[in-house]
Amino acid sequence: MSKKKLAILLRARMTSSSNHSAKSPLSLFHKEIPSNPQENHSGDHIVRHSSDLDNTGRVYDVVRETMHSAISASKTGVSDITLNHFQEGYSSLSLEDRRKLLLALAKEYDVNREQVRELIKQYLGLETPVASDDDDAELLLHSSPKKETALSSVFYRVEWNLRHALKPTYESFFERLNTHPGGLRFLSILRADLLSILTKENMPSLRALDSYLKEKLGMWLSPATLELHQITWDDPASLLEKIVAYEAVHPISNLLDLKRRLGIGRRCFGYFHPSIPGEPLIFIEVALMETVAQTIQEVLWDNPPIPENQAACALFYSISSTQPGLAGINLGKFLIKRVITLVKKEMPHVSTFATLSPIPGYMQWLLSKLSSQSRFAEEERGGGGTQSNPSSSTFSEKVLLPEEEQALMSLSDDSSSGSNGIEVLLSFLTQKNCDWATSPRILPVLEPILMRLCARYLLQEKKRGKALDSVANFHLQNGAMVERINWMADRSEKGIHQSGGIMVNYVYRLENIEDYAQSYFGSGQIHASPGIHSRL
Amino acid sequence: MSKKKLAILLRARMTSSSNHSAKSPLSLFHKEIPSNPQENHSGDHIVRHSSDLDNTGRVYDVVRETMHSAISASKTGVSDITLNHFQEGYSSLSLEDRRKLLLALAKEYDVNREQVRELIKQYLGLETPVASDDDDAELLLHSSPKKETALSSVFYRVEWNLRHALKPTYESFFERLNTHPGGLRFLSILRADLLSILTKENMPSLRALDSYLKEKLGMWLSPATLELHQITWDDPASLLEKIVAYEAVHPISNLLDLKRRLGIGRRCFGYFHPSIPGEPLIFIEVALMETVAQTIQEVLWDNPPIPENQAACALFYSISSTQPGLAGINLGKFLIKRVITLVKKEMPHVSTFATLSPIPGYMQWLLSKLSSQSRFAEEERGGGGTQSNPSSSTFSEKVLLPEEEQALMSLSDDSSSGSNGIEVLLSFLTQKNCDWATSPRILPVLEPILMRLCARYLLQEKKRGKALDSVANFHLQNGAMVERINWMADRSEKGIHQSGGIMVNYVYRLENIEDYAQSYFGSGQIHASPGIHSRL
Repeated sequence: MSKKKLAILLRARMTSSSNHSAKSPLSLFHKEIPSNPQENHSGDHIVRHSSDLDNTGRVYDVVRETMHSAISASKTGVSDITLNHFQEGYSSLSLEDRRKLLLALAKEYDVNREQVRELIKQYLGLETPVASDDDDAELLLHSSPKKETALSSVFYRVEWNLRHALKPTYESFFERLNTHPGGLRFLSILRADLLSILTKENMPSLRALDSYLKEKLGMWLSPATLELHQITWDDPASLLEKIVAYEAVHPISNLLDLKRRLGIGRRCFGYFHPSIPGEPLIFIEVALMETVAQTIQEVLWDNPPIPENQAACALFYSISSTQPGLAGINLGKFLIKRVITLVKKEMPHVSTFATLSPIPGYMQWLLSKLSSQSRFAEEERGGGGTQSNPSSSTFSEKVLLPEEEQALMSLSDDSSSGSNGIEVLLSFLTQKNCDWATSPRILPVLEPILMRLCARYLLQEKKRGKALDSVANFHLQNGAMVERINWMADRSEKGIHQSGGIMVNYVYRLENIEDYAQSYFGSGQIHASPGIHSRL
Repeated sequence: MSKKKLAILLRARMTSSSNHSAKSPLSLFHKEIPSNPQENHSGDHIVRHSSDLDNTGRVYDVVRETMHSAISASKTGVSDITLNHFQEGYSSLSLEDRRKLLLALAKEYDVNREQVRELIKQYLGLETPVASDDDDAELLLHSSPKKETALSSVFYRVEWNLRHALKPTYESFFERLNTHPGGLRFLSILRADLLSILTKENMPSLRALDSYLKEKLGMWLSPATLELHQITWDDPASLLEKIVAYEAVHPISNLLDLKRRLGIGRRCFGYFHPSIPGEPLIFIEVALMETVAQTIQEVLWDNPPIPENQAACALFYSISSTQPGLAGINLGKFLIKRVITLVKKEMPHVSTFATLSPIPGYMQWLLSKLSSQSRFAEEERGGGGTQSNPSSSTFSEKVLLPEEEQALMSLSDDSSSGSNGIEVLLSFLTQKNCDWATSPRILPVLEPILMRLCARYLLQEKKRGKALDSVANFHLQNGAMVERINWMADRSEKGIHQSGGIMVNYVYRLENIEDYAQSYFGSGQIHASPGIHSRL
């Protein structure tokens, strides 16, 4: 049916624009109707315009219908052509039409809840098979086998049916797309759209669709399916161009810069998925150094500081993921371990594997911590003897040490006043232009405070048992330890803004990677050097 | 814990058998305790024996415990070492111990049903989000957004939780093994064990485990993950050896025979999975012919009958799957379409793609059909005027045409008597040594009957809407049509026994493959040539 409609639309287009008749049926999705010399004579712009609108609506309808036939075809009966039509049709839609389509997908191809309720009724009416250890179970099976067997067969069948009924109808659609050429890539674009819609409005049905898709993508992109490749200057320009576009940590300014990142003294590795050829899902840049770098300036050299054969340290200075639609899916798992193995093979003389990493969440956390503490303190003062808000004393904590409090108060002047250390610190950190970072008077006072609180942030602040900082969480789950934090390691505006200019070295020790990753996953334990611990 | 036990067991073995101390810890799973000169002096055979038993029991316990820690480790915290230990430990167990272990897996790591019941209670207490078309839904969301949103957020979350609670605990174990090197292969061995246990006894919990594993394997082995390779004489002997071992249709007698199958005038293609390297999951053998062969003798030549550049037909004469643990999983999907594309590319002059296929279920179906009809007829006779069994007339049908009935009765003699055509036919077909197949008197009478019934079997006998014959179902779902059936095409004992010596040509027409596959999947429609239809 959808094919027929497509054909009709196509024919309509071909007659109205004969110079495009050689194009594929898919060109119908390009909404710009090419000017046609024959039609120009009619001069009726209003008609042209309404037919444009009409076509846009028709294109939406066709895409919607293609989606319907792709979902409702029997399990393996959906044709490649239908899926291609859908993918290309979807790509031609405006974001508003995509939103409409995704909402239709989420709502109309959701779980069949009538069926679920029916099956729940059956399920609750059945006896649960006796849970017992295997010996008892064997006895049971051998003593009154027939009836018991029949009963639990029914139970397992109903449970199976219920489990399947709870899957949304759109699941099979995702699965079909996944096994379709280009489908995985397409699903990642579709999820990027979903995420962008969800940041603007919270729609539970769309959120459910997103959770489901995220779970599926996470399964399909398991580390077992990813291939590690070294990216070099010999790779196709189409791939290198993507490295330039996606480099998120230290932007690549031009091709020469890129050539340097892939040249002597450096390496670049990417994780590729066979279904998304020609671009890495995540890539990592490595610099070969004598020692572990403390500032980003040491790493972003134009000419290699040492010959490669004198390198003792491989420094991971940038890790970028490329697909916004894969947000929240841990693609980096095992990446570093595998990169280390490769580097070690090529250069056995490299013995230290470390990162120089940003701490993207530090300032945000610190500012919010300081604000809430300052608020609590104010409430306590306001309430006088009787506490106006009992929660304030519960949540208030000593953020600053007495000597830090004192040092901050001594800095207080007209530009940054406050009735206590927290307020002074807050006023410095929220100054426009981050003047504190260039002031010889303020900087030495803030250094020990910001460094201590940074160690606390990295080692102690958690969310659901994992490090609050996303980059810390990435490396810790890969089996790293927190080795050292470096003052004024990134003086760029972004660096000062994100983390007060502090950067951190995570270190990977081959002999500990597996154990550290496991204890981090198991109990959230964060391994750190004595140097870091002593700052707490 | 399991590691410690392993280490203890290992140390025990190393002291008792110092000459094996250099082996990996895993050698502890080899149950044969090597004879030890020092112990021989004790001469106490009973002690040796009980320690053997003890060790076997201990090995089971260790494997069981390794399984437990692999399942109960946090999501990504299970170590490769644990999974390796489990795989090697499992492989060292006797089938009886494997049965015990699988039963424990099925019963103790099943669905948490208390949790399910709790969630069902919550689920039934919530209002279902309003199902409506997308425009209404948008209206709804925009009119009373807050409350509606909060309500359905809760609903979706509970539904998500219920869906996840209904997954057996062993699911994550399967997923961990799948992403572990060698794990997919291991899971296919595990399922082969399951299937072999289930043919002997029906245990609902094990059957549920098997269904679950089968579903997972089917997902992991989707066509998108399979790679097609041509297998040639240049491939490693370790791979070619497997082709010899697995060829199921026309056994390969020796290496020379194999060389012929891969030589001039022939091709061999296999579907490989990256996680199971070095052996195809399924492979297909092709002979290049002038026309579509009618008998197997035409195909199994020693020297190519024509030069390759004169070939007009690529005949698929053998398709074998190699993993018993993947039974029931459709690996062949798209295989033939992809092989055709490859052959066509190499040899554009080949225009016909056909098979010469066995009909493995024909005789079994026919004999059972004849027996039941003969029984019904007997019952009707026995019951005289009043029908003793009302079902017999309901289920009785005219299997034979009047002229066939007559021809068969005229053959009836001492060796094959019967009161009607069906009984005569049955007595011929169940003769020892299949004498009918070599009798010049009987053969011409049976030919039209067996050919007509064979056409009926292939085109009309179905199970759940699909062709009853497994090979027919395979080709039809791949998009073939039934072209021709061939009398006495396989005179081997197996051929006569399976299908009365009849073989069938399925034909693939590139322009129809997709449509035919789709209509077969959608409505079970079987496409066949006019020649076959005229036999019905």
